[in-house]
Amino acid sequence: MPTFKVTLAYDGTDFVGWQRQATGTSVQGLLEDALRALDDRDVTVHGAGRTDAGVHALGQIASFSLARAISADVVQRSLNAHLPLTVRVLSVEDTPDDFHARFNSRGKTYRYRLWNADVLDPFERRYAWHVYGALDVPAMQAAAALLEGTHDFAAFQGQKSAIKSTVRTVATSTLRIEDCGMRIGERGGLQSALRNPQSALLTYEITGSGFLRHMVRTIVGTLVEIGRGRRPVDWIGDVLASRDRAAAGQTAPAEGLFLVAVHY
Amino acid sequence: MPTFKVTLAYDGTDFVGWQRQATGTSVQGLLEDALRALDDRDVTVHGAGRTDAGVHALGQIASFSLARAISADVVQRSLNAHLPLTVRVLSVEDTPDDFHARFNSRGKTYRYRLWNADVLDPFERRYAWHVYGALDVPAMQAAAALLEGTHDFAAFQGQKSAIKSTVRTVATSTLRIEDCGMRIGERGGLQSALRNPQSALLTYEITGSGFLRHMVRTIVGTLVEIGRGRRPVDWIGDVLASRDRAAAGQTAPAEGLFLVAVHY
Repeated sequence: MPTFKVTLAYDGTDFVGWQRQATGTSVQGLLEDALRALDDRDVTVHGAGRTDAGVHALGQIASFSLARAISADVVQRSLNAHLPLTVRVLSVEDTPDDFHARFNSRGKTYRYRLWNADVLDPFERRYAWHVYGALDVPAMQAAAALLEGTHDFAAFQGQKSAIKSTVRTVATSTLRIEDCGMRIGERGGLQSALRNPQSALLTYEITGSGFLRHMVRTIVGTLVEIGRGRRPVDWIGDVLASRDRAAAGQTAPAEGLFLVAVHY
Repeated sequence: MPTFKVTLAYDGTDFVGWQRQATGTSVQGLLEDALRALDDRDVTVHGAGRTDAGVHALGQIASFSLARAISADVVQRSLNAHLPLTVRVLSVEDTPDDFHARFNSRGKTYRYRLWNADVLDPFERRYAWHVYGALDVPAMQAAAALLEGTHDFAAFQGQKSAIKSTVRTVATSTLRIEDCGMRIGERGGLQSALRNPQSALLTYEITGSGFLRHMVRTIVGTLVEIGRGRRPVDWIGDVLASRDRAAAGQTAPAEGLFLVAVHY
Protein backbone atom coordinates (compact mmCIF):
# COMPACT_ATOMS: atom_id res chain seq x y z
CA MET A 1 0.00 0.00 0.00
CA PRO A 2 1.62 3.27 -1.08
CA THR A 3 1.81 5.76 1.76
CA PHE A 4 1.91 9.51 1.27
CA LYS A 5 3.01 12.52 3.28
CA VAL A 6 1.14 15.66 2.21
CA THR A 7 1.82 19.29 3.12
CA LEU A 8 -1.30 21.41 3.44
CA ALA A 9 -2.22 25.06 3.84
CA TYR A 10 -5.71 26.03 4.89
CA ASP A 11 -7.79 28.98 5.95
CA GLY A 12 -9.40 27.64 9.11
CA THR A 13 -12.00 30.40 9.46
CA ASP A 14 -15.00 28.34 8.43
CA PHE A 15 -13.91 24.92 9.73
CA VAL A 16 -14.72 23.13 12.98
CA GLY A 17 -11.00 22.32 13.07
CA TRP A 18 -8.72 19.61 11.73
CA GLN A 19 -10.64 16.71 13.21
CA ARG A 20 -13.81 15.24 11.75
CA GLN A 21 -16.80 16.08 13.97
CA ALA A 22 -20.43 15.01 14.08
CA THR A 23 -21.42 18.29 12.39
CA GLY A 24 -19.57 21.02 10.53
CA THR A 25 -16.77 20.96 7.98
CA SER A 26 -13.38 19.64 9.08
CA VAL A 27 -10.12 19.56 7.13
CA GLN A 28 -9.73 15.84 7.84
CA GLY A 29 -13.25 15.23 6.55
CA LEU A 30 -12.63 17.24 3.38
CA LEU A 31 -9.45 15.29 2.67
CA GLU A 32 -11.05 11.92 3.36
CA ASP A 33 -13.95 12.85 1.09
CA ALA A 34 -11.58 14.04 -1.65
CA LEU A 35 -9.66 10.74 -1.46
CA ARG A 36 -12.81 8.84 -2.49
CA ALA A 37 -11.90 9.87 -6.05
CA LEU A 38 -8.67 7.85 -5.71
CA ASP A 39 -9.63 4.84 -3.63
CA ASP A 40 -12.63 2.54 -3.32
CA ARG A 41 -12.19 2.09 0.42
CA ASP A 42 -12.69 4.69 3.11
CA VAL A 43 -9.24 6.18 3.71
CA THR A 44 -8.26 7.51 7.13
CA VAL A 45 -6.07 10.63 7.08
CA HIS A 46 -3.79 11.32 10.04
CA GLY A 47 -2.85 14.93 10.75
CA ALA A 48 0.26 16.00 12.62
CA GLY A 49 -1.53 18.78 14.48
CA ARG A 50 -5.19 18.69 15.42
CA THR A 51 -5.81 22.39 14.91
CA ASP A 52 -8.88 23.81 16.64
CA ALA A 53 -11.84 25.57 15.02
CA GLY A 54 -10.72 28.77 13.29
CA VAL A 55 -7.00 27.96 13.44
CA HIS A 56 -5.10 28.13 10.13
CA ALA A 57 -2.24 26.14 8.65
CA LEU A 58 0.63 27.07 6.36
CA GLY A 59 2.38 23.72 6.63
CA GLN A 60 0.16 21.08 8.23
CA ILE A 61 1.36 17.52 7.52
CA ALA A 62 -0.99 14.59 6.94
CA SER A 63 -0.42 10.95 6.05
CA PHE A 64 -2.53 8.16 4.55
CA SER A 65 -2.21 4.93 2.60
CA LEU A 66 -4.01 4.06 -0.61
CA ALA A 67 -4.94 0.61 -1.93
CA ARG A 68 -3.52 1.13 -5.42
CA ALA A 69 -0.28 2.47 -6.78
CA ILE A 70 -0.67 6.12 -7.75
CA SER A 71 2.05 8.72 -8.26
CA ALA A 72 2.46 11.53 -5.76
CA ASP A 73 1.80 14.05 -8.56
CA VAL A 74 -1.55 12.51 -9.39
CA VAL A 75 -2.51 12.44 -5.70
CA GLN A 76 -1.73 16.16 -5.40
CA ARG A 77 -3.64 17.14 -8.53
CA SER A 78 -6.65 15.00 -7.68
CA LEU A 79 -6.86 16.31 -4.12
CA ASN A 80 -6.58 19.94 -5.24
CA ALA A 81 -9.25 19.33 -7.87
CA HIS A 82 -11.68 17.98 -5.26
CA LEU A 83 -10.91 20.28 -2.32
CA PRO A 84 -12.33 23.79 -1.85
CA LEU A 85 -9.89 26.68 -2.42
CA THR A 86 -9.71 27.17 1.34
CA VAL A 87 -7.58 23.99 1.53
CA ARG A 88 -4.61 23.48 -0.78
CA VAL A 89 -2.23 20.56 -1.02
CA LEU A 90 1.18 22.18 -1.43
CA SER A 91 3.15 18.99 -1.99
CA VAL A 92 2.86 15.20 -1.81
CA GLU A 93 5.73 12.79 -1.16
CA ASP A 94 5.96 9.01 -1.15
CA THR A 95 6.97 7.75 2.28
CA PRO A 96 7.73 4.39 3.88
CA ASP A 97 4.58 2.49 4.89
CA ASP A 98 5.21 3.03 8.59
CA PHE A 99 5.21 6.86 8.34
CA HIS A 100 2.56 8.46 10.54
CA ALA A 101 2.19 12.25 10.42
CA ARG A 102 1.48 12.60 14.13
CA PHE A 103 3.47 9.81 15.79
CA ASN A 104 6.64 10.51 13.81
CA SER A 105 6.58 14.27 14.42
CA ARG A 106 9.47 15.56 16.53
CA GLY A 107 8.09 19.05 16.91
CA LYS A 108 6.07 21.90 15.44
CA THR A 109 6.27 25.60 14.77
CA TYR A 110 3.27 27.85 15.37
CA ARG A 111 2.88 31.53 14.58
CA TYR A 112 0.42 33.93 16.19
CA ARG A 113 -0.39 37.24 14.49
CA LEU A 114 -1.44 40.36 16.43
CA TRP A 115 -2.76 43.55 14.87
CA ASN A 116 -1.86 46.42 17.19
CA ALA A 117 -3.32 49.69 15.96
CA ASP A 118 -6.43 51.77 16.61
CA VAL A 119 -8.15 50.61 13.44
CA LEU A 120 -8.18 47.01 12.26
CA ASP A 121 -6.97 46.29 8.75
CA PRO A 122 -10.13 44.77 7.20
CA PHE A 123 -7.95 42.20 5.41
CA GLU A 124 -6.61 41.00 8.76
CA ARG A 125 -9.98 40.41 10.39
CA ARG A 126 -9.79 36.63 9.88
CA TYR A 127 -6.03 36.31 10.38
CA ALA A 128 -4.98 38.33 13.41
CA TRP A 129 -6.11 39.30 16.90
CA HIS A 130 -6.88 43.02 17.06
CA VAL A 131 -5.24 44.31 20.24
CA TYR A 132 -5.96 47.98 21.00
CA GLY A 133 -3.64 50.34 22.85
CA ALA A 134 0.11 50.59 23.15
CA LEU A 135 2.06 47.39 23.78
CA ASP A 136 5.50 47.23 25.39
CA VAL A 137 7.09 45.02 22.73
CA PRO A 138 10.53 44.70 24.39
CA ALA A 139 8.84 43.48 27.60
CA MET A 140 6.84 40.92 25.62
CA GLN A 141 10.01 39.80 23.85
CA ALA A 142 11.83 39.33 27.15
CA ALA A 143 8.92 37.35 28.59
CA ALA A 144 8.64 35.20 25.46
CA ALA A 145 12.34 34.26 25.79
CA LEU A 146 11.75 33.03 29.37
CA LEU A 147 9.60 30.20 27.98
CA GLU A 148 12.49 28.63 26.08
CA GLY A 149 13.74 25.39 27.61
CA THR A 150 11.99 22.46 29.27
CA HIS A 151 9.15 23.47 31.59
CA ASP A 152 5.89 22.19 33.00
CA PHE A 153 3.34 24.13 30.92
CA ALA A 154 0.27 23.01 32.94
CA ALA A 155 -0.71 26.68 33.52
CA PHE A 156 -0.98 27.14 29.75
CA GLN A 157 -3.20 24.13 29.12
CA GLY A 158 -6.66 25.30 28.15
CA GLN A 159 -8.56 22.27 29.30
CA LYS A 160 -7.83 19.30 31.49
CA SER A 161 -7.05 16.32 29.36
CA ALA A 162 -6.07 12.69 29.75
CA ILE A 163 -2.42 13.31 28.91
CA LYS A 164 0.02 12.22 31.59
CA SER A 165 2.73 14.86 31.44
CA THR A 166 2.44 18.59 30.87
CA VAL A 167 6.21 19.01 30.53
CA ARG A 168 7.26 20.28 27.12
CA THR A 169 10.47 21.56 25.56
CA VAL A 170 10.36 24.90 23.74
CA ALA A 171 13.29 25.44 21.37
CA THR A 172 12.48 29.04 20.39
CA SER A 173 9.88 31.55 21.57
CA THR A 174 10.18 34.94 19.90
CA LEU A 175 8.08 38.01 19.16
CA ARG A 176 8.90 40.47 16.43
CA ILE A 177 7.51 43.49 14.63
CA GLU A 178 6.87 42.60 11.01
CA ASP A 179 9.17 44.76 8.93
CA CYS A 180 7.31 43.95 5.75
CA GLY A 181 4.37 45.85 7.16
CA MET A 182 0.94 45.15 5.82
CA ARG A 183 0.18 42.00 3.96
CA ILE A 184 -1.68 43.68 1.12
CA GLY A 185 -1.08 47.36 1.62
CA GLU A 186 2.56 47.13 2.57
CA ARG A 187 3.59 50.09 0.45
CA GLY A 188 0.13 51.49 0.03
CA GLY A 189 -2.44 53.77 1.49
CA LEU A 190 -3.47 51.80 4.52
CA GLN A 191 -0.23 51.90 6.44
CA SER A 192 0.28 55.61 5.95
CA ALA A 193 -3.37 56.27 6.71
CA LEU A 194 -3.31 54.38 10.00
CA ARG A 195 -3.05 56.71 12.92
CA ASN A 196 -0.55 54.56 14.67
CA PRO A 197 2.64 55.23 12.75
CA GLN A 198 4.48 52.20 14.12
CA SER A 199 4.34 48.88 12.36
CA ALA A 200 1.01 47.41 13.34
CA LEU A 201 1.66 43.72 12.85
CA LEU A 202 3.37 41.64 15.53
CA THR A 203 4.12 37.96 15.11
CA TYR A 204 4.87 35.53 17.88
CA GLU A 205 6.57 32.32 16.82
CA ILE A 206 7.20 29.23 18.91
CA THR A 207 8.91 25.95 18.06
CA GLY A 208 8.65 23.06 20.47
CA SER A 209 8.63 19.33 20.89
CA GLY A 210 4.92 19.27 21.55
CA PHE A 211 2.06 21.54 22.54
CA LEU A 212 -0.79 21.25 25.03
CA ARG A 213 -4.32 22.19 24.06
CA HIS A 214 -4.62 26.01 23.69
CA MET A 215 -0.99 26.37 24.84
CA VAL A 216 0.10 28.87 22.17
CA ARG A 217 -3.05 30.96 22.51
CA THR A 218 -2.73 31.07 26.31
CA ILE A 219 0.93 32.06 26.04
CA VAL A 220 -0.07 34.91 23.69
CA GLY A 221 -2.83 36.08 26.04
CA THR A 222 -0.27 36.08 28.86
CA LEU A 223 2.30 38.02 26.79
CA VAL A 224 -0.35 40.64 25.99
CA GLU A 225 -1.00 41.13 29.73
CA ILE A 226 2.70 41.93 30.07
CA GLY A 227 2.68 44.09 26.93
CA ARG A 228 -0.16 46.16 28.39
CA GLY A 229 1.93 46.79 31.48
CA ARG A 230 -0.49 45.01 33.79
CA ARG A 231 2.19 42.55 34.82
CA PRO A 232 6.02 42.62 34.90
CA VAL A 233 8.18 40.52 32.59
CA ASP A 234 9.08 37.89 35.18
CA TRP A 235 5.44 37.27 36.05
CA ILE A 236 5.49 34.69 33.26
CA GLY A 237 7.88 32.64 35.44
CA ASP A 238 5.34 32.78 38.29
CA VAL A 239 2.62 31.61 35.91
CA LEU A 240 4.76 28.64 34.83
CA ALA A 241 5.56 27.77 38.44
CA SER A 242 1.91 27.95 39.49
CA ARG A 243 0.87 25.10 37.15
CA ASP A 244 -2.55 26.79 37.44
CA ARG A 245 -4.50 27.83 34.32
CA ALA A 246 -6.23 30.56 36.33
CA ALA A 247 -2.86 32.28 36.86
CA ALA A 248 -2.23 32.82 33.13
CA GLY A 249 -3.73 35.40 30.77
CA GLN A 250 -6.73 34.97 28.51
CA THR A 251 -6.82 32.49 25.65
CA ALA A 252 -6.09 34.56 22.55
CA PRO A 253 -8.68 34.06 19.78
CA ALA A 254 -8.24 31.27 17.26
CA GLU A 255 -8.08 33.48 14.16
CA GLY A 256 -4.53 34.69 14.86
CA LEU A 257 -3.02 31.20 15.08
CA PHE A 258 -1.19 29.38 12.26
CA LEU A 259 0.45 25.96 12.27
CA VAL A 260 3.55 26.90 10.28
CA ALA A 261 5.54 23.67 10.04
CA VAL A 262 5.88 20.16 11.44
CA HIS A 263 9.36 18.83 12.09
CA TYR A 264 10.43 15.18 11.55
CA MET B 1 -22.63 72.19 7.48
CA PRO B 2 -19.38 70.47 8.47
CA THR B 3 -17.91 68.49 5.57
CA PHE B 4 -15.66 65.48 6.02
CA LYS B 5 -13.11 63.62 3.96
CA VAL B 6 -12.79 60.01 5.04
CA THR B 7 -10.19 57.40 4.07
CA LEU B 8 -11.54 53.86 3.85
CA ALA B 9 -10.21 50.36 3.44
CA TYR B 10 -12.55 47.53 2.51
CA ASP B 11 -12.60 43.92 1.50
CA GLY B 12 -14.81 44.05 -1.58
CA THR B 13 -15.36 40.29 -1.86
CA ASP B 14 -18.96 40.27 -0.70
CA PHE B 15 -20.07 43.68 -2.00
CA VAL B 16 -21.88 44.66 -5.20
CA GLY B 17 -19.31 47.44 -5.41
CA TRP B 18 -18.94 50.98 -4.13
CA GLN B 19 -22.22 52.26 -5.52
CA ARG B 20 -25.61 51.66 -3.92
CA GLN B 21 -27.68 49.23 -6.04
CA ALA B 22 -31.26 48.02 -5.99
CA THR B 23 -30.12 44.81 -4.30
CA GLY B 24 -26.99 43.63 -2.55
CA THR B 25 -24.62 45.31 -0.11
CA SER B 26 -22.64 48.32 -1.32
CA VAL B 27 -19.96 50.28 0.50
CA GLN B 28 -21.78 53.55 -0.17
CA GLY B 29 -24.97 52.05 1.25
CA LEU B 30 -23.21 50.79 4.38
CA LEU B 31 -21.69 54.22 4.97
CA GLU B 32 -24.95 56.06 4.40
CA ASP B 33 -26.72 53.67 6.77
CA ALA B 34 -23.97 54.07 9.39
CA LEU B 35 -24.31 57.87 9.17
CA ARG B 36 -27.94 57.63 10.33
CA ALA B 37 -26.47 57.37 13.85
CA LEU B 38 -25.00 60.87 13.41
CA ASP B 39 -27.60 62.75 11.41
CA ASP B 40 -31.37 62.94 11.24
CA ARG B 41 -31.40 63.53 7.50
CA ASP B 42 -30.45 61.05 4.79
CA VAL B 43 -26.80 61.80 4.03
CA THR B 44 -25.34 61.23 0.56
CA VAL B 45 -21.78 59.93 0.51
CA HIS B 46 -19.61 60.64 -2.55
CA GLY B 47 -16.80 58.20 -3.33
CA ALA B 48 -13.71 59.10 -5.34
CA GLY B 49 -13.64 55.75 -7.15
CA ARG B 50 -16.72 53.72 -7.98
CA THR B 51 -15.08 50.34 -7.45
CA ASP B 52 -16.85 47.39 -9.08
CA ALA B 53 -18.19 44.28 -7.36
CA GLY B 54 -15.39 42.33 -5.71
CA VAL B 55 -12.82 45.13 -5.99
CA HIS B 56 -11.05 46.12 -2.77
CA ALA B 57 -9.78 49.40 -1.37
CA LEU B 58 -6.83 50.32 0.78
CA GLY B 59 -7.33 54.05 0.49
CA GLN B 60 -10.72 54.93 -0.99
CA ILE B 61 -11.75 58.53 -0.29
CA ALA B 62 -15.32 59.59 0.42
CA SER B 63 -16.90 62.91 1.33
CA PHE B 64 -20.18 64.01 2.93
CA SER B 65 -21.69 66.86 4.90
CA LEU B 66 -23.55 66.59 8.20
CA ALA B 67 -26.24 68.89 9.58
CA ARG B 68 -24.67 69.32 13.01
CA ALA B 69 -21.18 70.09 14.22
CA ILE B 70 -19.37 66.88 15.16
CA SER B 71 -15.64 66.33 15.56
CA ALA B 72 -13.78 64.22 13.01
CA ASP B 73 -12.78 61.82 15.80
CA VAL B 74 -16.38 61.17 16.77
CA VAL B 75 -17.33 60.63 13.12
CA GLN B 76 -14.58 58.03 12.75
CA ARG B 77 -15.47 56.17 15.94
CA SER B 78 -19.18 56.19 15.21
CA LEU B 79 -18.74 54.95 11.65
CA ASN B 80 -16.39 52.16 12.72
CA ALA B 81 -18.81 51.16 15.46
CA HIS B 82 -21.68 50.84 12.95
CA LEU B 83 -19.84 49.36 9.96
CA PRO B 84 -19.01 45.67 9.52
CA LEU B 85 -15.32 44.70 9.98
CA THR B 86 -15.03 44.35 6.20
CA VAL B 87 -15.13 48.18 5.96
CA ARG B 88 -12.90 50.33 8.17
CA VAL B 89 -12.62 54.10 8.35
CA LEU B 90 -8.88 54.73 8.60
CA SER B 91 -9.09 58.47 9.12
CA VAL B 92 -11.50 61.40 9.01
CA GLU B 93 -10.56 65.01 8.27
CA ASP B 94 -12.55 68.24 8.31
CA THR B 95 -12.56 69.82 4.85
CA PRO B 96 -13.94 73.00 3.27
CA ASP B 97 -17.63 72.71 2.40
CA ASP B 98 -16.94 72.58 -1.32
CA PHE B 99 -14.75 69.48 -1.13
CA HIS B 100 -16.07 66.61 -3.26
CA ALA B 101 -14.19 63.28 -3.17
CA ARG B 102 -14.71 62.57 -6.86
CA PHE B 103 -14.75 65.98 -8.56
CA ASN B 104 -11.69 67.23 -6.69
CA SER B 105 -9.61 64.11 -7.35
CA ARG B 106 -6.55 64.69 -9.55
CA GLY B 107 -5.70 61.02 -9.93
CA LYS B 108 -5.67 57.55 -8.42
CA THR B 109 -3.36 54.65 -7.81
CA TYR B 110 -4.54 51.08 -8.33
CA ARG B 111 -2.73 47.84 -7.56
CA TYR B 112 -3.43 44.45 -9.09
CA ARG B 113 -2.13 41.29 -7.39
CA LEU B 114 -1.26 38.12 -9.33
CA TRP B 115 -0.45 34.76 -7.76
CA ASN B 116 1.83 32.92 -10.16
CA ALA B 117 2.56 29.40 -8.90
CA ASP B 118 1.16 25.91 -9.46
CA VAL B 119 -0.77 25.92 -6.21
CA LEU B 120 -2.82 28.85 -4.99
CA ASP B 121 -2.09 30.17 -1.52
CA PRO B 122 -5.49 29.63 0.16
CA PHE B 123 -5.12 33.01 1.90
CA GLU B 124 -4.85 34.71 -1.50
CA ARG B 125 -8.02 33.23 -2.98
CA ARG B 126 -10.00 36.45 -2.41
CA TYR B 127 -7.13 38.86 -3.07
CA ALA B 128 -5.22 37.77 -6.16
CA TRP B 129 -5.71 36.30 -9.63
CA HIS B 130 -4.22 32.82 -9.80
CA VAL B 131 -2.25 32.66 -13.05
CA TYR B 132 -0.76 29.23 -13.83
CA GLY B 133 2.41 28.61 -15.76
CA ALA B 134 5.63 30.54 -16.21
CA LEU B 135 5.37 34.27 -16.89
CA ASP B 136 8.02 36.35 -18.62
CA VAL B 137 8.15 39.10 -16.01
CA PRO B 138 10.73 41.33 -17.78
CA ALA B 139 8.54 41.32 -20.92
CA MET B 140 5.49 42.28 -18.84
CA GLN B 141 7.52 45.05 -17.16
CA ALA B 142 8.62 46.43 -20.53
CA ALA B 143 5.04 46.37 -21.85
CA ALA B 144 3.71 48.01 -18.68
CA ALA B 145 6.17 50.89 -19.14
CA LEU B 146 4.86 51.52 -22.67
CA LEU B 147 1.52 52.62 -21.18
CA GLU B 148 3.06 55.58 -19.37
CA GLY B 149 2.17 58.93 -20.90
CA THR B 150 -0.99 60.32 -22.46
CA HIS B 151 -2.82 57.84 -24.69
CA ASP B 152 -6.27 57.00 -25.95
CA PHE B 153 -7.19 53.98 -23.80
CA ALA B 154 -10.41 53.11 -25.67
CA ALA B 155 -9.13 49.54 -26.27
CA PHE B 156 -8.95 49.04 -22.49
CA GLN B 157 -12.46 50.24 -21.76
CA GLY B 158 -14.62 47.30 -20.69
CA GLN B 159 -17.96 48.71 -21.71
CA LYS B 160 -19.14 51.55 -23.87
CA SER B 161 -20.13 54.45 -21.73
CA ALA B 162 -21.40 57.96 -22.08
CA ILE B 163 -18.01 59.55 -21.41
CA LYS B 164 -16.76 61.83 -24.16
CA SER B 165 -13.02 61.21 -24.17
CA THR B 166 -11.10 58.00 -23.64
CA VAL B 167 -7.76 59.82 -23.46
CA ARG B 168 -6.04 59.42 -20.09
CA THR B 169 -2.61 60.23 -18.69
CA VAL B 170 -0.74 57.45 -16.91
CA ALA B 171 2.05 58.71 -14.66
CA THR B 172 3.51 55.32 -13.70
CA SER B 173 2.78 51.76 -14.79
CA THR B 174 5.02 49.16 -13.17
CA LEU B 175 5.09 45.47 -12.39
CA ARG B 176 7.25 43.96 -9.72
CA ILE B 177 7.92 40.69 -7.90
CA GLU B 178 7.01 41.09 -4.24
CA ASP B 179 10.20 40.63 -2.29
CA CYS B 180 8.35 40.27 0.97
CA GLY B 181 6.91 37.03 -0.38
CA MET B 182 3.75 35.68 1.12
CA ARG B 183 1.42 37.87 3.03
CA ILE B 184 0.97 35.48 5.92
CA GLY B 185 3.56 32.79 5.41
CA GLU B 186 6.40 35.04 4.30
CA ARG B 187 8.99 33.19 6.33
CA GLY B 188 6.93 30.09 6.85
CA GLY B 189 6.11 26.72 5.49
CA LEU B 190 4.06 27.73 2.51
CA GLN B 191 6.71 29.47 0.47
CA SER B 192 9.27 26.72 0.88
CA ALA B 193 6.63 24.06 0.26
CA LEU B 194 5.47 25.62 -2.99
CA ARG B 195 6.92 23.85 -5.98
CA ASN B 196 7.68 27.06 -7.75
CA PRO B 197 10.75 28.35 -5.95
CA GLN B 198 10.48 31.85 -7.35
CA SER B 199 8.52 34.50 -5.56
CA ALA B 200 4.89 33.77 -6.43
CA LEU B 201 3.33 37.18 -5.91
CA LEU B 202 3.44 39.83 -8.63
CA THR B 203 1.96 43.27 -8.20
CA TYR B 204 1.08 45.66 -10.97
CA GLU B 205 0.67 49.29 -9.93
CA ILE B 206 -0.67 52.15 -12.01
CA THR B 207 -1.11 55.82 -11.19
CA GLY B 208 -3.07 58.02 -13.56
CA SER B 209 -5.23 61.06 -13.93
CA GLY B 210 -8.33 58.96 -14.44
CA PHE B 211 -9.41 55.48 -15.36
CA LEU B 212 -11.99 54.04 -17.73
CA ARG B 213 -14.32 51.26 -16.64
CA HIS B 214 -12.36 47.96 -16.30
CA MET B 215 -9.23 49.73 -17.59
CA VAL B 216 -6.80 48.34 -14.99
CA ARG B 217 -8.20 44.81 -15.24
CA THR B 218 -8.01 44.86 -19.04
CA ILE B 219 -4.43 46.15 -18.92
CA VAL B 220 -3.53 43.28 -16.58
CA GLY B 221 -5.20 40.70 -18.85
CA THR B 222 -3.21 42.15 -21.74
CA LEU B 223 0.08 42.05 -19.80
CA VAL B 224 -0.56 38.39 -18.94
CA GLU B 225 -0.95 37.57 -22.65
CA ILE B 226 2.53 39.03 -23.14
CA GLY B 227 3.86 37.28 -20.02
CA ARG B 228 2.69 33.96 -21.39
CA GLY B 229 4.63 34.60 -24.57
CA ARG B 230 1.56 34.62 -26.78
CA ARG B 231 2.30 38.18 -27.87
CA PRO B 232 5.47 40.31 -28.10
CA VAL B 233 6.10 43.30 -25.83
CA ASP B 234 5.26 45.95 -28.43
CA TRP B 235 1.87 44.36 -29.17
CA ILE B 236 0.54 46.53 -26.34
CA GLY B 237 1.24 49.54 -28.58
CA ASP B 238 -0.85 47.96 -31.34
CA VAL B 239 -3.67 47.37 -28.86
CA LEU B 240 -3.58 51.04 -27.81
CA ALA B 241 -3.55 52.18 -31.45
CA SER B 242 -6.48 49.93 -32.36
CA ARG B 243 -8.87 51.70 -29.95
CA ASP B 244 -10.74 48.36 -30.12
CA ARG B 245 -11.63 46.43 -26.95
CA ALA B 246 -11.54 43.16 -28.92
CA ALA B 247 -7.83 43.67 -29.60
CA ALA B 248 -6.85 43.61 -25.91
CA GLY B 249 -6.52 40.67 -23.52
CA GLN B 250 -9.15 39.35 -21.15
CA THR B 251 -10.53 41.37 -18.25
CA ALA B 252 -8.62 40.12 -15.21
CA PRO B 253 -10.92 39.08 -12.34
CA ALA B 254 -12.07 41.65 -9.79
CA GLU B 255 -10.57 39.96 -6.73
CA GLY B 256 -7.00 41.01 -7.59
CA LEU B 257 -7.76 44.74 -7.82
CA PHE B 258 -7.21 47.29 -5.06
CA LEU B 259 -7.83 51.04 -5.09
CA VAL B 260 -4.68 52.08 -3.24
CA ALA B 261 -4.89 55.85 -3.04
CA VAL B 262 -6.68 58.90 -4.41
CA HIS B 263 -4.63 61.99 -5.17
CA TYR B 264 -5.80 65.61 -4.66
